[in-house]
Amino acid sequence: MKNNNSYSVFPFAAIIGQEKMKLALMLNAIYPAIGGVLIMGHRGTAKSTSVRALADLLPLRQKEPLVAEMNFNERSEQIVIQEAHDEDSHVPMVTLPLSATEDRVVGTLDIEAALAHGRRSFEPGLLAKAHGGFLYIDEVNLLDDHLVDLLLDVAASGVNIVEREGLSVRHPAKFVLVGSGNPEEGDLRPQLLDRFGLYTQVTTLTDVDKRVAVIKNTEAFRSDPVGFARQWQAEQQKLQKQIIRAMEILPEVVLPENLLAKTIELCLSLKIDGHRGEITITRAARALAALHGRTKVTATDIREVAPMSLQHRLRKDPLEKIDSLQRIENILTEILPVS
Amino acid sequence: MKNNNSYSVFPFAAIIGQEKMKLALMLNAIYPAIGGVLIMGHRGTAKSTSVRALADLLPLRQKEPLVAEMNFNERSEQIVIQEAHDEDSHVPMVTLPLSATEDRVVGTLDIEAALAHGRRSFEPGLLAKAHGGFLYIDEVNLLDDHLVDLLLDVAASGVNIVEREGLSVRHPAKFVLVGSGNPEEGDLRPQLLDRFGLYTQVTTLTDVDKRVAVIKNTEAFRSDPVGFARQWQAEQQKLQKQIIRAMEILPEVVLPENLLAKTIELCLSLKIDGHRGEITITRAARALAALHGRTKVTATDIREVAPMSLQHRLRKDPLEKIDSLQRIENILTEILPVS
Amino acid sequence: MKNNNSYSVFPFAAIIGQEKMKLALMLNAIYPAIGGVLIMGHRGTAKSTSVRALADLLPLRQKEPLVAEMNFNERSEQIVIQEAHDEDSHVPMVTLPLSATEDRVVGTLDIEAALAHGRRSFEPGLLAKAHGGFLYIDEVNLLDDHLVDLLLDVAASGVNIVEREGLSVRHPAKFVLVGSGNPEEGDLRPQLLDRFGLYTQVTTLTDVDKRVAVIKNTEAFRSDPVGFARQWQAEQQKLQKQIIRAMEILPEVVLPENLLAKTIELCLSLKIDGHRGEITITRAARALAALHGRTKVTATDIREVAPMSLQHRLRKDPLEKIDSLQRIENILTEILPVS
Amino acid sequence: MKNNNSYSVFPFAAIIGQEKMKLALMLNAIYPAIGGVLIMGHRGTAKSTSVRALADLLPLRQKEPLVAEMNFNERSEQIVIQEAHDEDSHVPMVTLPLSATEDRVVGTLDIEAALAHGRRSFEPGLLAKAHGGFLYIDEVNLLDDHLVDLLLDVAASGVNIVEREGLSVRHPAKFVLVGSGNPEEGDLRPQLLDRFGLYTQVTTLTDVDKRVAVIKNTEAFRSDPVGFARQWQAEQQKLQKQIIRAMEILPEVVLPENLLAKTIELCLSLKIDGHRGEITITRAARALAALHGRTKVTATDIREVAPMSLQHRLRKDPLEKIDSLQRIENILTEILPVS
Amino acid sequence: MKNNNSYSVFPFAAIIGQEKMKLALMLNAIYPAIGGVLIMGHRGTAKSTSVRALADLLPLRQKEPLVAEMNFNERSEQIVIQEAHDEDSHVPMVTLPLSATEDRVVGTLDIEAALAHGRRSFEPGLLAKAHGGFLYIDEVNLLDDHLVDLLLDVAASGVNIVEREGLSVRHPAKFVLVGSGNPEEGDLRPQLLDRFGLYTQVTTLTDVDKRVAVIKNTEAFRSDPVGFARQWQAEQQKLQKQIIRAMEILPEVVLPENLLAKTIELCLSLKIDGHRGEITITRAARALAALHGRTKVTATDIREVAPMSLQHRLRKDPLEKIDSLQRIENILTEILPVS
Amino acid sequence: MKNNNSYSVFPFAAIIGQEKMKLALMLNAIYPAIGGVLIMGHRGTAKSTSVRALADLLPLRQKEPLVAEMNFNERSEQIVIQEAHDEDSHVPMVTLPLSATEDRVVGTLDIEAALAHGRRSFEPGLLAKAHGGFLYIDEVNLLDDHLVDLLLDVAASGVNIVEREGLSVRHPAKFVLVGSGNPEEGDLRPQLLDRFGLYTQVTTLTDVDKRVAVIKNTEAFRSDPVGFARQWQAEQQKLQKQIIRAMEILPEVVLPENLLAKTIELCLSLKIDGHRGEITITRAARALAALHGRTKVTATDIREVAPMSLQHRLRKDPLEKIDSLQRIENILTEILPVS
Repeated sequence: MKNNNSYSVFPFAAIIGQEKMKLALMLNAIYPAIGGVLIMGHRGTAKSTSVRALADLLPLRQKEPLVAEMNFNERSEQIVIQEAHDEDSHVPMVTLPLSATEDRVVGTLDIEAALAHGRRSFEPGLLAKAHGGFLYIDEVNLLDDHLVDLLLDVAASGVNIVEREGLSVRHPAKFVLVGSGNPEEGDLRPQLLDRFGLYTQVTTLTDVDKRVAVIKNTEAFRSDPVGFARQWQAEQQKLQKQIIRAMEILPEVVLPENLLAKTIELCLSLKIDGHRGEITITRAARALAALHGRTKVTATDIREVAPMSLQHRLRKDPLEKIDSLQRIENILTEILPVS
Repeated sequence: MKNNNSYSVFPFAAIIGQEKMKLALMLNAIYPAIGGVLIMGHRGTAKSTSVRALADLLPLRQKEPLVAEMNFNERSEQIVIQEAHDEDSHVPMVTLPLSATEDRVVGTLDIEAALAHGRRSFEPGLLAKAHGGFLYIDEVNLLDDHLVDLLLDVAASGVNIVEREGLSVRHPAKFVLVGSGNPEEGDLRPQLLDRFGLYTQVTTLTDVDKRVAVIKNTEAFRSDPVGFARQWQAEQQKLQKQIIRAMEILPEVVLPENLLAKTIELCLSLKIDGHRGEITITRAARALAALHGRTKVTATDIREVAPMSLQHRLRKDPLEKIDSLQRIENILTEILPVS
Repeated sequence: MKNNNSYSVFPFAAIIGQEKMKLALMLNAIYPAIGGVLIMGHRGTAKSTSVRALADLLPLRQKEPLVAEMNFNERSEQIVIQEAHDEDSHVPMVTLPLSATEDRVVGTLDIEAALAHGRRSFEPGLLAKAHGGFLYIDEVNLLDDHLVDLLLDVAASGVNIVEREGLSVRHPAKFVLVGSGNPEEGDLRPQLLDRFGLYTQVTTLTDVDKRVAVIKNTEAFRSDPVGFARQWQAEQQKLQKQIIRAMEILPEVVLPENLLAKTIELCLSLKIDGHRGEITITRAARALAALHGRTKVTATDIREVAPMSLQHRLRKDPLEKIDSLQRIENILTEILPVS
Repeated sequence: MKNNNSYSVFPFAAIIGQEKMKLALMLNAIYPAIGGVLIMGHRGTAKSTSVRALADLLPLRQKEPLVAEMNFNERSEQIVIQEAHDEDSHVPMVTLPLSATEDRVVGTLDIEAALAHGRRSFEPGLLAKAHGGFLYIDEVNLLDDHLVDLLLDVAASGVNIVEREGLSVRHPAKFVLVGSGNPEEGDLRPQLLDRFGLYTQVTTLTDVDKRVAVIKNTEAFRSDPVGFARQWQAEQQKLQKQIIRAMEILPEVVLPENLLAKTIELCLSLKIDGHRGEITITRAARALAALHGRTKVTATDIREVAPMSLQHRLRKDPLEKIDSLQRIENILTEILPVS
Repeated sequence: MKNNNSYSVFPFAAIIGQEKMKLALMLNAIYPAIGGVLIMGHRGTAKSTSVRALADLLPLRQKEPLVAEMNFNERSEQIVIQEAHDEDSHVPMVTLPLSATEDRVVGTLDIEAALAHGRRSFEPGLLAKAHGGFLYIDEVNLLDDHLVDLLLDVAASGVNIVEREGLSVRHPAKFVLVGSGNPEEGDLRPQLLDRFGLYTQVTTLTDVDKRVAVIKNTEAFRSDPVGFARQWQAEQQKLQKQIIRAMEILPEVVLPENLLAKTIELCLSLKIDGHRGEITITRAARALAALHGRTKVTATDIREVAPMSLQHRLRKDPLEKIDSLQRIENILTEILPVS
Repeated sequence: MKNNNSYSVFPFAAIIGQEKMKLALMLNAIYPAIGGVLIMGHRGTAKSTSVRALADLLPLRQKEPLVAEMNFNERSEQIVIQEAHDEDSHVPMVTLPLSATEDRVVGTLDIEAALAHGRRSFEPGLLAKAHGGFLYIDEVNLLDDHLVDLLLDVAASGVNIVEREGLSVRHPAKFVLVGSGNPEEGDLRPQLLDRFGLYTQVTTLTDVDKRVAVIKNTEAFRSDPVGFARQWQAEQQKLQKQIIRAMEILPEVVLPENLLAKTIELCLSLKIDGHRGEITITRAARALAALHGRTKVTATDIREVAPMSLQHRLRKDPLEKIDSLQRIENILTEILPVS
């Protein structure tokens, strides 16, 4: 089942003016262990378009079979829940509709059928579809808390477990979770915020020329998607190669000890709770170095990824006047001054 | 199945005094990409009558079959869910009742039947009926938020997807969404407001002669709908021809570069979030030029459509004294002065 | 099935002292297009008794069959859902219990039976029973909003549509909607208020003699309903004849142009939203002229019906001291002075 | 099925010190048209004991069959839902448990059985059991509003109607409704209050000797119910005869015209809404005259029953200092002075 | 079915320092008509342990069969719902879990089975199990109000009635209701409080030696329940004999007239609503006299039981400074001074 | 069914800097009667990792069959609900998902199957799985109160009872309950807090070197779990041996009388409600002595475990300035000074 839409997707390269969001998405594409990204911003700022366009940047790959383990009465059985495909295809980019039910997300287990016929009684859900790719939730702050908990749990463990009356099914479900939302429509609980690796805010562009370009791109894509894609082909392929190269060298990228200590000092100064802040910075910085073709993280890499790694992990201080991004930049300048 | 009611519908041409609402509806009829219209106003101001009368303005067309793609167990099948009709008929104007269930809107999937008999197990809903025409929701601000989300999603993507336990059906659902409501009964969330292309407010007429005419028309139509329609036939046909002509020349209509820049400047000055404001203006202005038989957008076109494109996208400023329409007009005068 | 209760109903003619309520009910009986009446008042003021007594005033008529159109899979079939009766019977006066479910109101559709046996699978509800007569809701302000919406929709369109999973049934449901309630127990939303044609307030009588008469009538009817009805027979028949005569001449009644303009001026001065106010006045005035045996509306007719047509359509002005009825009377005196 | 408990019920005659409550209950026993009684008071003041003891005061009677009319598909059938009994038995005293469901109260209709077997598919509920007797609700102010509405409707109309999907059953359900409650646990809505004929407040006795007697009676009844009943037999029979005599002469009791006028004047002065106040007074006064063996109502009768007929119908006046009972007494003294 | 746990229950005699609670439980064991006891106190103060240990104090008895009366269609049948046991066994001590459903409490009625097979279709619930013994509810203030109402009703009437669609079952359910709770977790409604006969508050011991003894007992029982019970056997048997003796002489215990008058005076001075306060005192005092082996109640008995009989029946007076127990003691000293 | 994950679990020994939490977990592992532990702390502080790693510290053991007793109609039957295993395996560490239903936790009872086939109709739940090991609830403060109650009840009694319509199943369910949560997301009710034996707070480390070590461990484990475990093998085995030795000598550990009195004095000074505080201290101190290889509790043991035994049992005093831990330390110093 190839991705029929591949030619009609807006090219990632053609997105204009939202550099931070593009970077956060690419870092996650390179190194999924970063833990996803949460994009908050005004309506109409190309959040959804950017996310959907990302999958096209990644290399095609042969799809392997997805195997689940079914347990019943202490017996265990392996079942194939998604067939392999020989042809190359895009990594999956699955959109979770706001109205999705838990059944639809985790898959459904037909226990009567299981008892009667013994097998093939598990119908996989969106988590199985997203395996090896991305799971995208638009308006994540409007999603039922219970589903958000469930998604973050699976994203963290990489395993989806469905249990019903003594029967259980478990299968791998490794994916990058991407959420987007409008801050005016409600916040996420701090506990959930913390579990997204990166966080970026997008705002409406204020540069008229860039906005003219956005409109032209939008209308050009609308009247002729295929022609539009062809026009951006070169730039899109350049980006694609850069990402593939980054994925290859990532295992070799090292983070110098002193930069690790500086990173922890930064988190301490900002009173970040727990260790997820510094872990995210080290991972994102390694991905960024790889994106630049380097195998050693530099202070510049840390400075670049620290704000998007920490902004959503700061405790809210109602008395302080300066905003959270500025607080991070101030401490960064102090601890990792641009030499 | 022809539209039995065609002769009993109040003629669009006979609507008196609500020029802005009429224009917004006609622009959407000419160019559906404008993205629908939301009409807010007092009770008893002919909102529903106007919307229902609009379909009669549009050219009759042969109804093509509507084909859905059904997927199950990685197999895919095409099924015809609405038959073709050889006779010409009106474009559909579907009214969504407030009590409509999600099933009724998206269609129902009989999974047991699908498993047993393999086909014809999808019963299409109102979205299939509205394909190629209009979907009208009266009192949209009283509709369940979840349904509003769903409708705006489908209207934006043009595709209706129904999924249940591993079985999925998708079919085209391209329609213009028209909502109406009474502002006293509650607002739409800003996120939803932004996704209606145009917005118009209707108020009670204050001109006695016009109101006399309204009453006369209402009572005349009530006692003899056929006779009344005959009386307005000429004017109705003139309007119809104008719209058909506009639909033909629309692809050729161009928007001069400088007007695009001016449009963006306008949105920037008004601090409109995102790009939907300027995209709507450019599309509506092109439709308006076409309605006037021109193939080039003028500053006058922009001035005409800007207010109805932006009014619902302004951020509410509780301190400002002047109302939102006036703010738009003031900036318009500054940026696009009547030469 | 004749109305077994006919002899046991309190005679309309015997109701004492609530002239406005009696008039509003009779005007609707003569001309259902007025759009029903909402009666608000203290408990124990004969609201329910009056409404239930109204049906006896109207001429007996042969009951015609009620035919519904059932649609399934684009096929259509006519089914008779209420048999004809040769004997004359009263127009129906259906009381909607507060506990009525939507099923009970609109009718129930047995879709399994429809698929298996093809027909007779629709069991009509209260709306079918009320067709051609009255639907009465006591304590309408306590009724579920959803049901009120539904009832007003059907009352306005005259058609009841029931849809379930691709099967739909529609049948005529033309009736006068009569609501009553106690204002201390909660208000109707303005949107709903506006859709009742007329509105009257009833208050406890303050004249001792009238109250003595009320008690005597009540106790006399309680101990001997048949005898009591016989005693009022002459007066009841006089009223009945007057109403039948009015229904006959109604189509000929005309409203002079200048009075229409005055009516609109009145609504403008009172800042009534929309056109329903003036439409109701013109219809009620024509019915009143007919009740008096005239074929031409006079200024007196307008003065008589304007307050009950407009009182519930006034915007609430919390600062104004005088009550809404007085405001209407003041403007009436100005615009339509008693010559 | 005779009342097995008859000898084990506390004798009505043995109730000490709550004269108003005893009177209100007896008047309703004599003349059910008074419309029931609502007893509000502190916990532990013998409210329930008194109500349950009342049935024993009334004459035994042969139980007649209770016949319901079942309608289906415009056919009608008579079914016996309670058999006749030749032996004399007590009038029923049915207690409605707080947890009663609507089904349990109105009866259940087995529509599948009705369709399959045609008859005996109605299982009568508590309303059928209470027919001809009393229905008692303890803690009526805690009962679900919906059930209170339903009970008051049936009590007022004397008919119980059960409808489900085109099948309906109706049977007579004439009973006196007796409610009791603790005012600290919540009020009834004014609309409901008004529909109880009489209202009495009971308070804890303050006379030590009476309280000693209460305790002695309670403990004596507890250790030997039969012996206790025997001890009170004479007094109980005297009361019983008095009530039977009153029921016989009630139809002959007349209310002089001038007293009716005075009664209305009283209600007017107290600004009682509607006519139920004066109707209740006239009925209760006639029952009281009958209890005293008279066939003519006197001013003393009116003075005796007016407070319990009006107290719950007064509008609450938050500014007034004197309590509602005192207000009634003051006006009574003015209008009907003890000559 | 003997009580398998009998040897593993903590001996009542071994409970240290909570004399009031022990007394309240023993009085109810001697004389169930006292009406149960409500124990409020801090967590970890042996409330549950004490209640569970109480059953072991009472004499073993042969279990008699429990017979229910089932009624259907006016026919009546006797069914045995708990078999007799020839061996002696403990009185039941049933714990009601917070999660108990109404079905589980009152028993379940299988109406389909009843119709098909005629008998044995009632599965008794916890109320049947508790018959003749104790029903214990821990955290009674967290129990669903509806269940508390139901339990108090059955405890008061001694009869459990289950009704469903025309079928009813009733069986004796006489038990002492014991509730415990933590006042910090919420109050009972005054109406419910009043229906518990006695009320005691338990607080943490402040005497170190007693607390050492508590810990030693707890740990000794934990490591060797059988040995621990053996060690306390003598004291436990002494208590047991005292209670059995008290149950024998209770019917002969009299309350002198003057003490009854004093008791009522006491309740009057404290403004206790209703008669339950004084009834409880007289019953508890008689049980206390019996516990002391006397057949005549003394002023000392009254002084001992009055506080636990009245404390929960005092009206809360937010202005008064002294606590409710002190108020009772003050009035007691005045009315029944220690001579 | 051996624990497949055993080699991939983070070694307990490798957890850095959270000494109190480690101690509380180990004491419970040694002596389950301590009653579990509640761990509250910031997100990202290795709470879950530590708990999951604990099971690996405990000795492997042969799994014995788990036998349940099923009762129906007064007959009783033994059924094996978990088979024995001859190979040694880890003690179970069961994680309770937030979305777990009561059925899933206690097991499901198929009553229809039970009636039809007599046996094997109970499907055990998580409580059966956790028997003999640990039950871990992350975000316990977000768990439904009803489930928390149920879990604490079973944890306290060691028996799981499932009842449905006359059928009941009971089986042993002895486990250590471990809860963790974030205090910012809500508190537990004091009643529940008190029932966890120990309580520890974890906070983010402030020592940079320790944090560097944490990150290194985390990333090392992530890239090579097997190698990482091998590296920590020696230290892990040392801990394991220490715990096994402690479990062996625990029964011999004694608490000197004077230390028991001091412990009670401590609880009295801190106004701890009930006896659970001092019982927990004595148990935890005995486990700590055993951990150190001693058979006699010392004052130092008491000083070490008192804070984690009492902190959650202090009454909140809103006026006091010092925090609860400091209050405990102050009193400790006074009562048990370091000699």
